[in-house]
Amino acid sequence: MDSHIIQALKDIVGADRLETAAEELHCYSYDGIGQQFVPEAVAFPESTEQISKIMALASSKSFPVVPRGAGSGMTGGSLPVAGGLVLALGRMNRILEIDEENQLAIVEPGVITGKLREAVAPLGLFYPPDPASLKFCTLGGNVAECAGGPSAIKYGVTRDYVLGLEVVLADGRILETGVRTRKGVVGYDLTRLFIGSEGTLGVITKIILRLTSRPTASKTILLLFADMAPAAALVAAMLKEHTPSTLEYLDNTALGLVAGKLPFVLPAEAKAMLLVELDGDGQSVELQSSRLDDFLADHKEILLCKKAENPEEVEALWMARRSVSPAAFSLKPDKISEDVVVPRSKIPELVACTEELSKRFKLPIFTFGHAGDGNIHVNIMLDKANPEEISSGTQAKEALFREVLDLKGSLSGEHGIGITKAPFLGLELSATSLDIQQQLKKLFDPLNIMNPGKIF
Amino acid sequence: MDSHIIQALKDIVGADRLETAAEELHCYSYDGIGQQFVPEAVAFPESTEQISKIMALASSKSFPVVPRGAGSGMTGGSLPVAGGLVLALGRMNRILEIDEENQLAIVEPGVITGKLREAVAPLGLFYPPDPASLKFCTLGGNVAECAGGPSAIKYGVTRDYVLGLEVVLADGRILETGVRTRKGVVGYDLTRLFIGSEGTLGVITKIILRLTSRPTASKTILLLFADMAPAAALVAAMLKEHTPSTLEYLDNTALGLVAGKLPFVLPAEAKAMLLVELDGDGQSVELQSSRLDDFLADHKEILLCKKAENPEEVEALWMARRSVSPAAFSLKPDKISEDVVVPRSKIPELVACTEELSKRFKLPIFTFGHAGDGNIHVNIMLDKANPEEISSGTQAKEALFREVLDLKGSLSGEHGIGITKAPFLGLELSATSLDIQQQLKKLFDPLNIMNPGKIF
Repeated sequence: MDSHIIQALKDIVGADRLETAAEELHCYSYDGIGQQFVPEAVAFPESTEQISKIMALASSKSFPVVPRGAGSGMTGGSLPVAGGLVLALGRMNRILEIDEENQLAIVEPGVITGKLREAVAPLGLFYPPDPASLKFCTLGGNVAECAGGPSAIKYGVTRDYVLGLEVVLADGRILETGVRTRKGVVGYDLTRLFIGSEGTLGVITKIILRLTSRPTASKTILLLFADMAPAAALVAAMLKEHTPSTLEYLDNTALGLVAGKLPFVLPAEAKAMLLVELDGDGQSVELQSSRLDDFLADHKEILLCKKAENPEEVEALWMARRSVSPAAFSLKPDKISEDVVVPRSKIPELVACTEELSKRFKLPIFTFGHAGDGNIHVNIMLDKANPEEISSGTQAKEALFREVLDLKGSLSGEHGIGITKAPFLGLELSATSLDIQQQLKKLFDPLNIMNPGKIF
Repeated sequence: MDSHIIQALKDIVGADRLETAAEELHCYSYDGIGQQFVPEAVAFPESTEQISKIMALASSKSFPVVPRGAGSGMTGGSLPVAGGLVLALGRMNRILEIDEENQLAIVEPGVITGKLREAVAPLGLFYPPDPASLKFCTLGGNVAECAGGPSAIKYGVTRDYVLGLEVVLADGRILETGVRTRKGVVGYDLTRLFIGSEGTLGVITKIILRLTSRPTASKTILLLFADMAPAAALVAAMLKEHTPSTLEYLDNTALGLVAGKLPFVLPAEAKAMLLVELDGDGQSVELQSSRLDDFLADHKEILLCKKAENPEEVEALWMARRSVSPAAFSLKPDKISEDVVVPRSKIPELVACTEELSKRFKLPIFTFGHAGDGNIHVNIMLDKANPEEISSGTQAKEALFREVLDLKGSLSGEHGIGITKAPFLGLELSATSLDIQQQLKKLFDPLNIMNPGKIF
């Protein structure tokens, strides 16, 4: 990136909004996966117009542009693997409008997910998607990756809340997609083409989000089982007549990791845990809870049923779920973390597969995740200082992916492809699908300057 | 279409599965809009492979192919406006799989929407989208147009239930999109690119649908108001704390049309009606109903509140809503029917606009529709034998569209663009959007053989 480009960028965003100092570039060189790629410059644009000018410049000078929210992605989506310019969107963090009557919000991409939740709560409104990183991730990143979370089982994922977008295309043109209304079928669905496209088709500069009414009450229940199979069977049976807002599980290894953190003594025979949450208004939660009690009473395979009676007990139960990831580093210093998804009835088979892989590759492997929708976080623990373990971990990951696809699942439920899963894309997608997708990429970005090196 | 092509088509589908007789072609020359375009041939394929061969032939010989479900579309989407071959998909009507545990179904495109509902009901499962034509329309058509219905306010539209597709591309290649799981973010969202694409990008040959648990109880309530404004305000207030499964309205003119059909005497001051339905399991409906009663008791602007106490009374209340369309022909022999959508708070303004247009163009105009999501059916009544009324009706329609867009609405909520709205597409979509959409069309269908003349 020569000095003329740097000067042109400064002319667009202002000299104090463009960084080229090594220590600044360093801050924008990583994301959630622990790999590092240093960009040549970082711009902090403050408007769609600035981004439009930057993209026009990038097209004429042919340099890569990598949009970046909070850098909390799990597959390397915001890493500048081909150098170029990082577009740090953190300053475009205004909530432009909250339309209370029509239950929608219009936001810039740098708004932190949790901040939108806080802003709409006093109006009795709710933005449901709840990625684990919601306190620091951005809505632009959520849209780019189609983020999900524990509440997806009841409320769906980011895709289900985006009504329309403003996007700056690779050549600098500004495109508006979608509607401000709940329904809309005018022309091709460009909105959802951008959702989950990981910054490879354009820069998202505005997001129209549907909101719902805010649940005012909730109830949390922890269940223990002697095996994953009865836990998964219970999930299927429960979802026929109940609508929990979350339905998380821990497998035997994960449960062992957090045994000491539980607010009760873990029975020796417990090998699987479910964490169930109900939400709604007070009366509805009471009714749901009493119906769920009746259902659970009929299921003698439940070893222990622990209901949280107050906020402290809720916190104590969730603590177990949240402690899994940090506790895992007691096993090994590094991990490969994958968010595969299988039909939920196949969870026991997938857990059995990970246990078998753990034995075969002599690495600790554990799983936890969203039992209601089959989206499972598989954690392969290893020491990256040990080349043998890196090799074993990589082989275990590929064997896992093949099993997931055999079970009619998918390689990613909510993290996207980025760079970490890109080599495996051809396992899931046919040659025809890959061809169409690459043609789409070429249509939107003929010079391959929009976040190059991702997905494919 | 020369005799060699006809013979080649017969070789693919069998001689008895290809029709060229005038009386047969006539049957496939119309849809719900009352215009007629006669195809050159109609094929009745029975497999994806046959369709793949037909498309390869169509590509090599360059003739138009128009996929057709039940021909119940409202914008001309299945009309062979450029002649060529109609692909009648009614024989591809198998429900291939119902996966009870994972709550999904895999169907061929010719399955009638209502038949899927019937098939899954005994398993306690439910396919929510409910276009008015659900007893005869097909799921392939629903996906092609992204059909909605009254229950969209609670359950969403067709788009929200499609997990994946099998599509035959214009060149005959078979493409699989999406997943069999609730989540999935691998690559670009080709599934939703085909949803609502009106048969212009490929032929849908298989659909993976998400199902939910079946509601076992419901409650219907009719409300009358002296004006649309308080009715719309009540809708906004209601949706903050209640989740009705339908929320339909009739305006003053529509209400007048069905006054005689109501199971009670219509108060003279009633100028707007809401029809509210709650659903769920028995206990949940009781709770929702008692909460709604409390809410309604506080709203003195309600002139009359009529609750259905038994199935016969439910039927009597719904009869009023369903009688509007047939009763309209007492006003004039023909109608222009448009399914515009506005932010729901803007419904009173849109209704006022239609009343003004009615006066200005001296044509009866009435509206009814989905008050919860702002999707409004505007009916401009006219006599097509009278050229002056055709001209006035066309002008009124364009004036309506401009008002809808001023109110930040959209030209179609659930019917699509087809040929009837195609001339107005540029009112809503920018030059950039149209350019991108036409490039997408060219990418998938470079020879313009897939349902040509639609959308653009």
